[in-house]
Amino acid sequence: MLKELRQKVFDANLKLVEYNLVVLTWGNVSAIDRKSGLVVIKPSGVPYDSMTVDDMVIVDLRGNVVYGKLNPSSDTPTHIELYRRFPEIGGIVHTHSPWAVSWAQAGRDIPAYGTTHADFAFGDIPCTRGLSEEEVNGEYELNTGIVIAEEFEKRGINPEECPAVLVHRHGPFTWGRDESKAVENALILEEVAKMAYQTESVATLSGDSDVGIEKYLLDKHYLRKHGKNAYYGQK
Amino acid sequence: MLKELRQKVFDANLKLVEYNLVVLTWGNVSAIDRKSGLVVIKPSGVPYDSMTVDDMVIVDLRGNVVYGKLNPSSDTPTHIELYRRFPEIGGIVHTHSPWAVSWAQAGRDIPAYGTTHADFAFGDIPCTRGLSEEEVNGEYELNTGIVIAEEFEKRGINPEECPAVLVHRHGPFTWGRDESKAVENALILEEVAKMAYQTESVATLSGDSDVGIEKYLLDKHYLRKHGKNAYYGQK
Amino acid sequence: MLKELRQKVFDANLKLVEYNLVVLTWGNVSAIDRKSGLVVIKPSGVPYDSMTVDDMVIVDLRGNVVYGKLNPSSDTPTHIELYRRFPEIGGIVHTHSPWAVSWAQAGRDIPAYGTTHADFAFGDIPCTRGLSEEEVNGEYELNTGIVIAEEFEKRGINPEECPAVLVHRHGPFTWGRDESKAVENALILEEVAKMAYQTESVATLSGDSDVGIEKYLLDKHYLRKHGKNAYYGQK
Amino acid sequence: MLKELRQKVFDANLKLVEYNLVVLTWGNVSAIDRKSGLVVIKPSGVPYDSMTVDDMVIVDLRGNVVYGKLNPSSDTPTHIELYRRFPEIGGIVHTHSPWAVSWAQAGRDIPAYGTTHADFAFGDIPCTRGLSEEEVNGEYELNTGIVIAEEFEKRGINPEECPAVLVHRHGPFTWGRDESKAVENALILEEVAKMAYQTESVATLSGDSDVGIEKYLLDKHYLRKHGKNAYYGQK
Repeated sequence: MLKELRQKVFDANLKLVEYNLVVLTWGNVSAIDRKSGLVVIKPSGVPYDSMTVDDMVIVDLRGNVVYGKLNPSSDTPTHIELYRRFPEIGGIVHTHSPWAVSWAQAGRDIPAYGTTHADFAFGDIPCTRGLSEEEVNGEYELNTGIVIAEEFEKRGINPEECPAVLVHRHGPFTWGRDESKAVENALILEEVAKMAYQTESVATLSGDSDVGIEKYLLDKHYLRKHGKNAYYGQK
Repeated sequence: MLKELRQKVFDANLKLVEYNLVVLTWGNVSAIDRKSGLVVIKPSGVPYDSMTVDDMVIVDLRGNVVYGKLNPSSDTPTHIELYRRFPEIGGIVHTHSPWAVSWAQAGRDIPAYGTTHADFAFGDIPCTRGLSEEEVNGEYELNTGIVIAEEFEKRGINPEECPAVLVHRHGPFTWGRDESKAVENALILEEVAKMAYQTESVATLSGDSDVGIEKYLLDKHYLRKHGKNAYYGQK
Repeated sequence: MLKELRQKVFDANLKLVEYNLVVLTWGNVSAIDRKSGLVVIKPSGVPYDSMTVDDMVIVDLRGNVVYGKLNPSSDTPTHIELYRRFPEIGGIVHTHSPWAVSWAQAGRDIPAYGTTHADFAFGDIPCTRGLSEEEVNGEYELNTGIVIAEEFEKRGINPEECPAVLVHRHGPFTWGRDESKAVENALILEEVAKMAYQTESVATLSGDSDVGIEKYLLDKHYLRKHGKNAYYGQK
Repeated sequence: MLKELRQKVFDANLKLVEYNLVVLTWGNVSAIDRKSGLVVIKPSGVPYDSMTVDDMVIVDLRGNVVYGKLNPSSDTPTHIELYRRFPEIGGIVHTHSPWAVSWAQAGRDIPAYGTTHADFAFGDIPCTRGLSEEEVNGEYELNTGIVIAEEFEKRGINPEECPAVLVHRHGPFTWGRDESKAVENALILEEVAKMAYQTESVATLSGDSDVGIEKYLLDKHYLRKHGKNAYYGQK
């Protein structure tokens, strides 16, 4: 069942290790087959170095396991909610990569400070509000997805134009048209989060607080790569 | 004698190198066989790349060497005291991993700032009081173990719920149900220590000091992974 | 066409990965054949691990592709302008290496703080002014090259004596007599940028702001390596 | 000539790369044969990945090359002066490792903040005074050695008890009974320099400035490893 997609999701999970975005059993990658509405996701709590392609779990959009012997990632309800609310996306990644987590734990959006950021997202990377005690004690992982989607709606952000979010006190989720792009975005987010911290630090040491990319430069970089007249890359 | 456990302790010591937690001869891993009351531990001052499984030393709970040609780690009395005082644990790790050491040298507990921490420990990671001149000039390594156990008792912390401590001006000890889990905890502690520093730095740069995980979120994450109704991972 | 130079530029691009200066498709290296006025450059948006030597693109100094099936790097007009304005240089590198980017995003020159810097450049590493909205919305990549050259002229800096620049809100360009030297300079710039941040941080923590290399020490180090009486290295 | 020592010095130089203490051609290791008074040292400006054991140069204590086809390291006169002034040492290392350089560029001693430091050195790591314009424009590399030795004399530091120094605005030199120990000390110095910065940062973030190892703990750790009653390691 969905053999090719299981292989792709397995490979994408191992990329998290290669990119130094996870240790031990942390993090997870999923992908959705939009025709069947089935989601392939990493099993819960399995170390990357002993995981096999057959350990990938398939769930439907109500969270029922339809294939596989292991429990799916405990974050599965978050993934499913994001697939429901963001119909354009095909793959999702969750990590505890240190710089993205640090911004999330501080409860801060990552400001757009330069062209590396602008090549990636069309504005600041939002940090969600914290979940309430009721939301945490209820269907916590589902509510995490709901709070992410709510944040994007409230701010009027298009998830295709900002492929990443920080969950308050927790860490990042990223996405993309497929699982491979979602993993790339997890790597870029970590680079951008690191550079944003360093930029503020370098600026603060000089007493100079003139940071923040100009809107026209943000537009230029985002649109030369992602707009309909994009000219970065190959056809 | 305890051939299987010696192999496990040897393998666990090499994991410290793989996880970038030690350089040169720094750090050590031990495990206890609770039936016989014997402890397998790394020899003192032996580099990881020339160490063999036969170099592992076996000591009894009074510190007498009962197997092996080399001196056991100079930290052996600390390990033994922890095995005496914390009867639930099966493995102990000591490293000089840089972020954990930095919090220890600053004499600070590591505050619980997010879910990465909450997945690991049920509250702040305590830093012990400093040893007195008498304690240092007396049975120093034994007294280090006594001060750790005293800190947990004084604060009412269950060592199963907090598998790590910082020894003042010195560095971390971690533990677990076995040597393998203790090594994992050493790695997680270093990640958590790094993220805690980064979280405070990111918060400080914005003038926003609203950091610290909410109690209900700490409970949720700790208990979904470690409580009796835990649902993280596989059965 | 220019087979040897295409191989050298390909190899130099892979050095960026080896030196941890780029991830994914970021960055690019070019070299010029001064006799023919042709420039070999990385194709746009191609990942390093699937790139082959035949993917290298050759363009003339008006930016026309004269060899190769792929689009050249979107930064090609910047490279070309620098080859036009700096006739002594033979290779150019652009990266988004994190420390150099952080200084660029903060809009700061990198001050000469010690002999590592002085071995590399004969003074501070300049950060350009920001491009205007007109410059960004016009021929952006060409204007980037123009602004770099303008900055060097305005400050009276000889590009042979300062093989690096930070483009405001963007990141570094480096150069050298050939593509290999330009890559070395990209690596050195990143080290120097990191050390400059760390130097300011270490000084600030002590309340001591007495940083900045003495002019006579800068001269000594730069000239013992690069001057006409240089005695560093082999003949 | 001194074939065995040339091999050891070559191997020790490659350790600098393995330990991530150098890039490109930076850094150098030497060793002295005290019977003949001959010093084996890395050649100047040769990259580590193309260097062979036959490239090692032998000089006498007046700096004359007595073996080898290449120029010795430009820092050779510093090494020689240290061998003259510190008769107990057998090997010397110079690197531009980033954390040690950052303290040197900030002109600060590295304070003893914990047991990692105390296992290594019997007090703070001194940063020398800056060289005067006359000293720089004269026999610069010789004067660097003189200033190091002067700093140790002035402060009454025994070079056997403190195997490292920071040269103002420049970077670290370390030494030991042989080239292998000197390289180990270069690695430890970098760890200690990094941890010292992090310790001050962690303390500063909390408003707590109570850092600095207690004298009795420094004594204990240094002497259990290096004193005549040392009990760390094997016989």
